[in-house]
Amino acid sequence: MQYKDYSREQRDAELSQLWDEFNAIKAQGLQLNMARGVPSTDQLELSLGVLDILHSAADCSASDGTDCRNYGVLDGIPECKRMMASMLGCDPEMIMIGGNSSLNMMFDTIACFMNSPVTPGTPAWALVADRKFLCPVPGYDRHFGITEYFGFEMIPVPMDENGPDMDKVEELVKDPSVKGMWCVPKYSNPTGVSYSDEVVRRIAALEPAAPDFRVMWDDAYCIHDLTDDHDEILNIFEECEKAGHPDLAIAFCSTSKITFPGSGIAAMASSDNNMKVIKNKYKYQTIGYDKLNMLRHVRFFGDFDGMKAHMKRHAEVLRPRFEIVLKKLSEQLEPYGIVWYNRPRGGYFVCVNVMDGTAKRVVALCKEAGVILTGAGATYPYGNDPYDSNIRIAPSFPGLEELSGAMDIFCLCARIAALEKLNA
Amino acid sequence: MQYKDYSREQRDAELSQLWDEFNAIKAQGLQLNMARGVPSTDQLELSLGVLDILHSAADCSASDGTDCRNYGVLDGIPECKRMMASMLGCDPEMIMIGGNSSLNMMFDTIACFMNSPVTPGTPAWALVADRKFLCPVPGYDRHFGITEYFGFEMIPVPMDENGPDMDKVEELVKDPSVKGMWCVPKYSNPTGVSYSDEVVRRIAALEPAAPDFRVMWDDAYCIHDLTDDHDEILNIFEECEKAGHPDLAIAFCSTSKITFPGSGIAAMASSDNNMKVIKNKYKYQTIGYDKLNMLRHVRFFGDFDGMKAHMKRHAEVLRPRFEIVLKKLSEQLEPYGIVWYNRPRGGYFVCVNVMDGTAKRVVALCKEAGVILTGAGATYPYGNDPYDSNIRIAPSFPGLEELSGAMDIFCLCARIAALEKLNA
Repeated sequence: MQYKDYSREQRDAELSQLWDEFNAIKAQGLQLNMARGVPSTDQLELSLGVLDILHSAADCSASDGTDCRNYGVLDGIPECKRMMASMLGCDPEMIMIGGNSSLNMMFDTIACFMNSPVTPGTPAWALVADRKFLCPVPGYDRHFGITEYFGFEMIPVPMDENGPDMDKVEELVKDPSVKGMWCVPKYSNPTGVSYSDEVVRRIAALEPAAPDFRVMWDDAYCIHDLTDDHDEILNIFEECEKAGHPDLAIAFCSTSKITFPGSGIAAMASSDNNMKVIKNKYKYQTIGYDKLNMLRHVRFFGDFDGMKAHMKRHAEVLRPRFEIVLKKLSEQLEPYGIVWYNRPRGGYFVCVNVMDGTAKRVVALCKEAGVILTGAGATYPYGNDPYDSNIRIAPSFPGLEELSGAMDIFCLCARIAALEKLNA
Repeated sequence: MQYKDYSREQRDAELSQLWDEFNAIKAQGLQLNMARGVPSTDQLELSLGVLDILHSAADCSASDGTDCRNYGVLDGIPECKRMMASMLGCDPEMIMIGGNSSLNMMFDTIACFMNSPVTPGTPAWALVADRKFLCPVPGYDRHFGITEYFGFEMIPVPMDENGPDMDKVEELVKDPSVKGMWCVPKYSNPTGVSYSDEVVRRIAALEPAAPDFRVMWDDAYCIHDLTDDHDEILNIFEECEKAGHPDLAIAFCSTSKITFPGSGIAAMASSDNNMKVIKNKYKYQTIGYDKLNMLRHVRFFGDFDGMKAHMKRHAEVLRPRFEIVLKKLSEQLEPYGIVWYNRPRGGYFVCVNVMDGTAKRVVALCKEAGVILTGAGATYPYGNDPYDSNIRIAPSFPGLEELSGAMDIFCLCARIAALEKLNA
């Protein structure tokens, strides 16, 4: 029976029993963390070979003879550009290899356009007082952090099972102060949704009033499938080209969740026109990024096929973790009619909607019981979830047993919060 | 006899003979490069051990237990902060470790203040239309590139044997639109001058009209001594503290010319007030820099003493190169009274003043003969050397024999250009 159909007495009795369970757990003083999409130690072990791959001077020579131990090469060594181009589905000419973080490259890109117009004749974004950015919600808190830092008004656009609501996007881009849009097109953070072909085509076909409107295409989970039966999305560059908008999209990716987060390789890609403006910034900002680390990654994988094979090993570690989360939600929350959640085929998150108006309470209760979750609302600009319902669960980091225990606590807290709400 | 005392006939005869030499060299089709301060292959060999120092999961654990293979730690692992703090002469609490480039951190610092005021109540620099920056000259072209990119008017301040002309600096900072000053305090690029105690004290004691005026203290050559008898400079943080200006200076350094340029560790340090503003940017820009590379460096050196011992090995490789340059200048140009140059006790450059009005010509002639030099004027903002006389020689990269040949060509070209000028 669903909680909403319980009598007041039934709810009180249930709540009383759940509080007993809660207090017993709280007394154990647990410390479990499901807050961030962080690979587990088991996953890190898969990439130990990266550490031990360069030994001699001869090992440090790139395919074009560049001594990777010395200065130079602004946009990356050729073999690394080729590998990352395969990942983003573009020509190696479009690629720039960065440091250890695609987030850093996204920040730098917005920072660049703040001071240097990406389109000749448009004002730098710093000079557009009412600048705005479209933010599909729920979305990635660190994306929203960047646009908030740079003073954009962030406009939420609801996500459905096909991606962002494109009717709304097409309407919003008629405002010339709307300068761009965040996208995680495959296994979106946190919904796990991959954009449908129609959504990708409509994004590519956008005719924004602002000629300097850009789509920030964060392909963070492009090869992060959990099973062989995985999502495929259309190639954004091909679709933009077909639609006659070759400068619309800028794509990003990294090896952070492939080898070592924080010690990986990031890359970005876009049209000549865009990369010219972006590289004109980078040429003052750096002499070039870490070529030895580029070499380590290319040597470890061999090529993009090697990288994809490596991702199957990650999937084997991750899959049981996702299964635990889904099983617990299905067994412990669904019967009471107090949950909606996705069943992603890849990525790093299970997106859970608990009963409206209870997400903050659930996160607080979990914390009290020793389970750290991503803050409720974090997946919305300004931390503002209008329904106070969305919670992002990151199953990757804990061990299986730990995760199982943490999910029991999560479900318990979601039930308590729902009953409290119904009783209020 | 000096060229200026030659008769016209003597000069014509000399010139004719020098042209014969020049044409013979040109016919050899040489390719020699003294353009940039790049370590030689012999120097890179000294640090091969850095490549091969992390093997297992256990190797990747920081002193505080952090697994350096995973996300996190915004400002660097503790042991790396301690080592770099010794290098900059400050408390580890003041340190932030960055990526592979201190230039990148300087760029990011200026970029930060463009959008986020470093001092509460002052406008972001992007909003100061007539913003200005002080540039000791000759100086480092990449510093000038950063302030030019961000739209600062650059005001040259002459360097003498004690550092920048402080009378002039004290006068210029009375203008509230003067927001900062570039400094390479030890073995300045390119003059090789180390700031005298008086200069450091007068910098620390500056009372700029702009409360958000900052000294960009690029300590690029802080332990880059050529001999045991080396320069020492005062500690800028201590002097600023004594002068009651703890927020005045922001210091930078890196291991680029210690281990591998482009694959090293950069660091910056400043007061709590400054670092708070700067880290408030970094926390949106990145999750943290490459901790495995921090570990590699700490493990390779052990500590700061290990780093200093390592620098003695660099000095052994570099010293003969500097000796060749100085010997050639002394033997082939001094007798003709057409050169002034420094004798640095460290750093990466020999700063040469050829006859006024001939630097561009000398660089062009050298190029014709197959020797690439730093562009004439590059050491001045906007590439504008008012005397057209300064040329930066970077002796580190070429082999000894190659360098010797390149210097012969340089001296030949300087003589030709001087005679042409005197004849004009």
